[in-house]
Amino acid sequence: MTELEEFIKKIPFLAHINVELVSIKEGYCEILMPISKIHFQQNGFVHAGVQSTLADHACGVAAATIAPEGKTILSIEFKMNMLRPAVGDQLIAIAKIVKGGKTIVVTEAEVFTIKGNERKMVSKMQATMMVVDIPKN
Amino acid sequence: MTELEEFIKKIPFLAHINVELVSIKEGYCEILMPISKIHFQQNGFVHAGVQSTLADHACGVAAATIAPEGKTILSIEFKMNMLRPAVGDQLIAIAKIVKGGKTIVVTEAEVFTIKGNERKMVSKMQATMMVVDIPKN
Amino acid sequence: MTELEEFIKKIPFLAHINVELVSIKEGYCEILMPISKIHFQQNGFVHAGVQSTLADHACGVAAATIAPEGKTILSIEFKMNMLRPAVGDQLIAIAKIVKGGKTIVVTEAEVFTIKGNERKMVSKMQATMMVVDIPKN
Amino acid sequence: MTELEEFIKKIPFLAHINVELVSIKEGYCEILMPISKIHFQQNGFVHAGVQSTLADHACGVAAATIAPEGKTILSIEFKMNMLRPAVGDQLIAIAKIVKGGKTIVVTEAEVFTIKGNERKMVSKMQATMMVVDIPKN
Repeated sequence: MTELEEFIKKIPFLAHINVELVSIKEGYCEILMPISKIHFQQNGFVHAGVQSTLADHACGVAAATIAPEGKTILSIEFKMNMLRPAVGDQLIAIAKIVKGGKTIVVTEAEVFTIKGNERKMVSKMQATMMVVDIPKN
Repeated sequence: MTELEEFIKKIPFLAHINVELVSIKEGYCEILMPISKIHFQQNGFVHAGVQSTLADHACGVAAATIAPEGKTILSIEFKMNMLRPAVGDQLIAIAKIVKGGKTIVVTEAEVFTIKGNERKMVSKMQATMMVVDIPKN
Repeated sequence: MTELEEFIKKIPFLAHINVELVSIKEGYCEILMPISKIHFQQNGFVHAGVQSTLADHACGVAAATIAPEGKTILSIEFKMNMLRPAVGDQLIAIAKIVKGGKTIVVTEAEVFTIKGNERKMVSKMQATMMVVDIPKN
Repeated sequence: MTELEEFIKKIPFLAHINVELVSIKEGYCEILMPISKIHFQQNGFVHAGVQSTLADHACGVAAATIAPEGKTILSIEFKMNMLRPAVGDQLIAIAKIVKGGKTIVVTEAEVFTIKGNERKMVSKMQATMMVVDIPKN
């Protein structure tokens, strides 16, 4: 799984917003981001777009763990509910597979803020991923 | 509407990803972002999280144009379909109101890439916004 | 297109709720249902499940108009916003294609109530359809 | 809780498609429907519209269990993924609350087919409910 972790660290947008990878298992992915001012919307909460970036990415990686060699994952669509204002020290997205398939993998992710010992769910995503050939740039 | 424009420019996460405001009218908002490497996912396409940030924000601003004084808008939820790989010089999100209400405003946004004279729709969002009191930090 | 219309009239659940087909064009479908008491939820409004049935079906037929021979359409997922209570004489769903593809067709549908000359949008769906081989029963 | 059960049995559309209520607890609802030919789409599978009716209704009832007196629940929006063809003797929707709030209650439902001893998840919904005053007809 180390290759996959290496791969993820090189993704430009995730680096730009300070995302760190925590854990990958079959059908499961956890990613974490230390929260700082760059992530805020107008009221000092983490922007919903930041939350969806983490959740979408965790879903994609969870789906990738069951993709055959030579294949990769693209997000077809996702839906996310924001449950409460996101305030804290760290943001963590935990994704798992709802249903794996040859072409379509349905996933979901829960996003939490962590402040000291307290962990609160701030958003939840349900997302559809597609298994595709690795694009040639 | 200039105050609203000023307000938007001060949002930290939008500044961090180089979002610019183009146009606000009643029930309508257009925002633009010059595409650079910081926005890419692993295949050199604009990350779906970036697209959803623009789309969500445009929806929120479109909804805010009909909110009463002393009120602001929070995103309750959004759903977005990625239609094709997002490649180009600029990303633009155009949002409008589907149905305005006292508490709930339903909106939608189309996201396009622009490359020279060519404009392609790369994603589409349907989003639910809620009219709330301005949070006190 | 008459074969497709014949085909649609034989769908048991649509017959059970009195759905009628109005119009099919390439990438477009309109279906209509006279509203009666059988469609109501607890407050005398048309149940959201009825609205989603019409919208989903119209999306599927719109997508089917661009499917190659020997292929059919399955709904992968849909998202629907209910915009106002659905009250009237007829319910009509109008679907069109947002983006057609070989495997995935993204569609949307608007659902209206009709009462006399008045037409009101009561819900809006964004739906993802997949082109598949015709299942053998 | 018996009053709530009585209330549910009188809902016309649920009666029309043979929905039965199984179980209500705080923040939880299970509803069941014996599958028959009336529920089929063109390939002999339970129509996605039937599945969404059950899932949406179970979500609404789960949300209603935490609504204050004099209030009721309306569905604002839902999103559902169809996971596999729905074939079996019974369809069951199990809903729970993801996050309760004064105005907004976020819920989710899993829909299963039952055939003999076998139970398969066929769809999953994430839905946003709103606490409103009971409408006066």
